[in-house]
Amino acid sequence: MKKGKLYVIGVGPGDPELLTIKGQRLLNSVSSICVPKGREEGSSLALSIVSKVIDLDGKEIIEAHFPMRKTRDKEHGDELDIKWNETVDIVMARLNSGKDMAFITIGDPTIYSTFFYLYDRLLGIAPDLDVEIVPGVSSINASAARARISLGLADEKIAILPATYVANLKDILAKFDTVVLMKVHRVFDKVVGILDEMGLLSNAVYIARAGMADEKIFTDIRNIREDDLNYFSLMIVRR
Amino acid sequence: MKKGKLYVIGVGPGDPELLTIKGQRLLNSVSSICVPKGREEGSSLALSIVSKVIDLDGKEIIEAHFPMRKTRDKEHGDELDIKWNETVDIVMARLNSGKDMAFITIGDPTIYSTFFYLYDRLLGIAPDLDVEIVPGVSSINASAARARISLGLADEKIAILPATYVANLKDILAKFDTVVLMKVHRVFDKVVGILDEMGLLSNAVYIARAGMADEKIFTDIRNIREDDLNYFSLMIVRR
Repeated sequence: MKKGKLYVIGVGPGDPELLTIKGQRLLNSVSSICVPKGREEGSSLALSIVSKVIDLDGKEIIEAHFPMRKTRDKEHGDELDIKWNETVDIVMARLNSGKDMAFITIGDPTIYSTFFYLYDRLLGIAPDLDVEIVPGVSSINASAARARISLGLADEKIAILPATYVANLKDILAKFDTVVLMKVHRVFDKVVGILDEMGLLSNAVYIARAGMADEKIFTDIRNIREDDLNYFSLMIVRR
Repeated sequence: MKKGKLYVIGVGPGDPELLTIKGQRLLNSVSSICVPKGREEGSSLALSIVSKVIDLDGKEIIEAHFPMRKTRDKEHGDELDIKWNETVDIVMARLNSGKDMAFITIGDPTIYSTFFYLYDRLLGIAPDLDVEIVPGVSSINASAARARISLGLADEKIAILPATYVANLKDILAKFDTVVLMKVHRVFDKVVGILDEMGLLSNAVYIARAGMADEKIFTDIRNIREDDLNYFSLMIVRR
């Protein structure tokens, strides 16, 4: 029997209308949708986005509880492996029965998405897996659009950094025209300190929950308060 | 009279189905669509994409002939200014008459889009201009999706460089996990030389015309021939 195809669909950054026409068509066509569900806030947003533009009645929704961890640590390694393997088994069972299915991810699948951890495991047991990755609008582009700033023009260089890299931040700020700091809420005070030191405070824009109902945009980052810091937030620094 | 609103819409990288639902709705709603038309190949693609998913009958299509130049050079400065000003006048005339209009751009408007040159000029004469930038799928995300590779996971750092920066390329390749080289066709041999020297040839993927009918993906960049080099192409190097 012909195996099913796995569509990995980026559903965009939060506004359901930022789903692509292709994403919408494919989500309507599949009978099973796999949704990553981890500890972090992002995990259930993907399904909530899709539910606003797709009729989910009669579709199987598979909530894959796996951890959105950067690396497997020694302590939890085994536990994480079991969770991943459960998801692999569920996905492979659907595909082996000839059903197409979708795996949804917020933003774009190639930008810091959990999917690639699953993909490695799927390819490990099924190297001939039929997979199509359907790109989506990333939170980076959506945030810049909401702040009405360009990420790059002409010969400009853009750096995208998870904000954990504060140690290298000065060097990168000196060499790039635009620096996008992901998950900046975790190291916010350190980043503000570095920007202040470099005289770049007024070059930074902070965008939380771009395009969502409770979106906030700060063009003066000194006005940001503790509860404005958010998992779905990033900072863009333009030289 | 209430002035019209300008929607700047990213129509995605080439596959018409990668337009967002929002982009489609807004393009259906406006009576005028402004299309950048420059010397480079990208200029007419945006309208061709839109024409496949929107009924353009009865809509005014304004082809704005302006140069997609990085900087105004001394020789052509005046000529370029005149072209820009013509476009500004056309856009302002529609908005001042109370009509909403759309400005379309391939990919995403915040990634190396000409629009921001126009935006500066528009804001200069109409600071209270009502503008909404509607993000789109960028060619960077679409290319990575087609090649089925992640641009970044967990704590990884991503650099996006117009390939004119070959001078700094070694340093950046050493410090970033992923380097995306835009417009790499212009300096292809130099880039291959640097990658070879650094032992990174097999870490590079070259994607031309991602998602279009004549798309080409090279996982071995030594197989690339002169006529595979293309304006709509980029290279992704993963450490």
